[in-house]
Amino acid sequence: MQNSKEELRAAARLAMDDKVKPLGSLGMLEEWAVQLAVLQGTLTPRIDRARILIFAADHGVSAEGVSAYPREVTLEMTRTFSSGGAAINVLSRAAGLEVEVTDVGVDGDLSAMPGLVHAKVRRGTRSFLREPALTPAEWEAAAEAGRQAVRRAAEAGAQAVGLGEMGIGNTTAAAALLSGLTGAAPEDTVGRGTGVTDEILRHKREVVQGALRLHAGPERELRTLVAALGGLEMAAIAGAAQEGARRGLAVLVDGFISTVAVLSAVRLDPTIRPALFFAHRSAERGHRIALETLDARPLLDLDMRLGEGTGAALALPILKAAADLMRDMATFSQAGVSTSEPAPALR
Amino acid sequence: MQNSKEELRAAARLAMDDKVKPLGSLGMLEEWAVQLAVLQGTLTPRIDRARILIFAADHGVSAEGVSAYPREVTLEMTRTFSSGGAAINVLSRAAGLEVEVTDVGVDGDLSAMPGLVHAKVRRGTRSFLREPALTPAEWEAAAEAGRQAVRRAAEAGAQAVGLGEMGIGNTTAAAALLSGLTGAAPEDTVGRGTGVTDEILRHKREVVQGALRLHAGPERELRTLVAALGGLEMAAIAGAAQEGARRGLAVLVDGFISTVAVLSAVRLDPTIRPALFFAHRSAERGHRIALETLDARPLLDLDMRLGEGTGAALALPILKAAADLMRDMATFSQAGVSTSEPAPALR
Repeated sequence: MQNSKEELRAAARLAMDDKVKPLGSLGMLEEWAVQLAVLQGTLTPRIDRARILIFAADHGVSAEGVSAYPREVTLEMTRTFSSGGAAINVLSRAAGLEVEVTDVGVDGDLSAMPGLVHAKVRRGTRSFLREPALTPAEWEAAAEAGRQAVRRAAEAGAQAVGLGEMGIGNTTAAAALLSGLTGAAPEDTVGRGTGVTDEILRHKREVVQGALRLHAGPERELRTLVAALGGLEMAAIAGAAQEGARRGLAVLVDGFISTVAVLSAVRLDPTIRPALFFAHRSAERGHRIALETLDARPLLDLDMRLGEGTGAALALPILKAAADLMRDMATFSQAGVSTSEPAPALR
Repeated sequence: MQNSKEELRAAARLAMDDKVKPLGSLGMLEEWAVQLAVLQGTLTPRIDRARILIFAADHGVSAEGVSAYPREVTLEMTRTFSSGGAAINVLSRAAGLEVEVTDVGVDGDLSAMPGLVHAKVRRGTRSFLREPALTPAEWEAAAEAGRQAVRRAAEAGAQAVGLGEMGIGNTTAAAALLSGLTGAAPEDTVGRGTGVTDEILRHKREVVQGALRLHAGPERELRTLVAALGGLEMAAIAGAAQEGARRGLAVLVDGFISTVAVLSAVRLDPTIRPALFFAHRSAERGHRIALETLDARPLLDLDMRLGEGTGAALALPILKAAADLMRDMATFSQAGVSTSEPAPALR
């Protein structure tokens, strides 16, 4: 299996090198094309259909004064996704992507909202300043909601999913989880999120420090740690990444929250890594560390820090284009184009 | 005029700030949306239709042993564009873009080729190691071919054009032109192009140094300088940028050659700058200097160095998406979403 994957990677690399262009001149597109070929097990990879999966949930820590926005915004934005006016709706329409929104833990009643997947595990996490945010069983229930979303996408014919989220307070939880998983200091993992003041930023770091004192440390069991510091949307993203990898779907990771969530999934199961593509480098401070830990080079760097899967929606057409290049570009011999020549005698 | 443009810019900025997202969280997309609104003179900008314009031409300097590919490749690739197997064809199909190819100076007979615009000024430039590559009149004739291409695109309903090129030897000519326009040393403007060896790279720098001794210097008249060092495809791109700006089209600049060409256009007429959008940062060495000189921040950074307009084809859907965001995203009040709140009392 591993051997045939390496053979396929070499064949895909050769196929790209034979395309009518200077060697390596398509840069990252070539790397994505090769990764996709290996993932799909073919030299003619394709992304005909892709879906953005958004998971929405609240956070106990949002009661601790760490966000520029009130907790209600999670519910209000989840409604906005359904009515089609959010950034992710606009970008998905522009890119021809489907969008599915799952409520895995919004603090509010959305049961009457059509078009929303109802998989609420609980109304937000507990505040990890006082107790674990989630039990391992709750994390697992939300992860299962993520897996289900990928199953639906795969059954509808999608070859790729983009993983987005909504949850007021979740840059704080993601920073705590990232520090818990990597040992990085809160000074490096905590950023301004949706745009907090210097004063709130300092407070946010203290909150994360407090959570780490209570729940982190090298002796902690991994599943207990991620549940104690993470969130329901992160668990869902982790489950979605796992299921996507299992099915050979390309999993496009969005920004800071999404990356930290898949980092926890990779820690739980390192074999999923080859399915992961990283859409963009968020302006959020901790994202750099999360990407480095995953040895990930993101495609885009546009100073975005919105979440919702907006980076993934912008990058998905480029992933599709990478597949198209591998499949449809002519080779030198097909095109009748001369290949590079030995250096002529210099005058 | 200037005043109303500044008023429109302020109104566009306010409109983006009122969208249902944290302030500034869409990063460069917001800047592009505002620039496009000002360019189109409306708070509801749109890119419904866009066209990639490729200009192909040969270079006298390709006889000096500066390229990894033989001169015939310019003609062969121009044929490949018409048959649809080149990278730019694949990427344009993926993005729903039209492609038009103009022969402004290929060294070969393409007169029987259908689908190609025939505007050959001469069969390649002269070698600027011996004499000026072009006369100012030849530069102007090629620039007019570029303007005509933009006129056709505009008449077909395009609101944006991406400017690409093909021409064996043209990284050498673009490096010489960039050095001539900015005074930057050949060590900084000459790169590996399609992938030359260390030995050819050294030779390529000597060639550019020789051209600069012959044709550059502070006392040279600008039109004489650009003609002496540039190329027919660069003149066409410069003309296209000028005409695009005149008509209020968004002009998406591709990589190194394209950027140096529009730099010459901006030097000839600085008022065109607001119409220019920069698609990507090429891996070619001199591109950084060209971008800095234009105070340009490119959208993508994918280690690409192919030309043809490939970077522009990847960036055009993102420019369209920026317009869509400005036009279609809901505001906080439309969506019924709470705005940011004063910081709560910290515990």
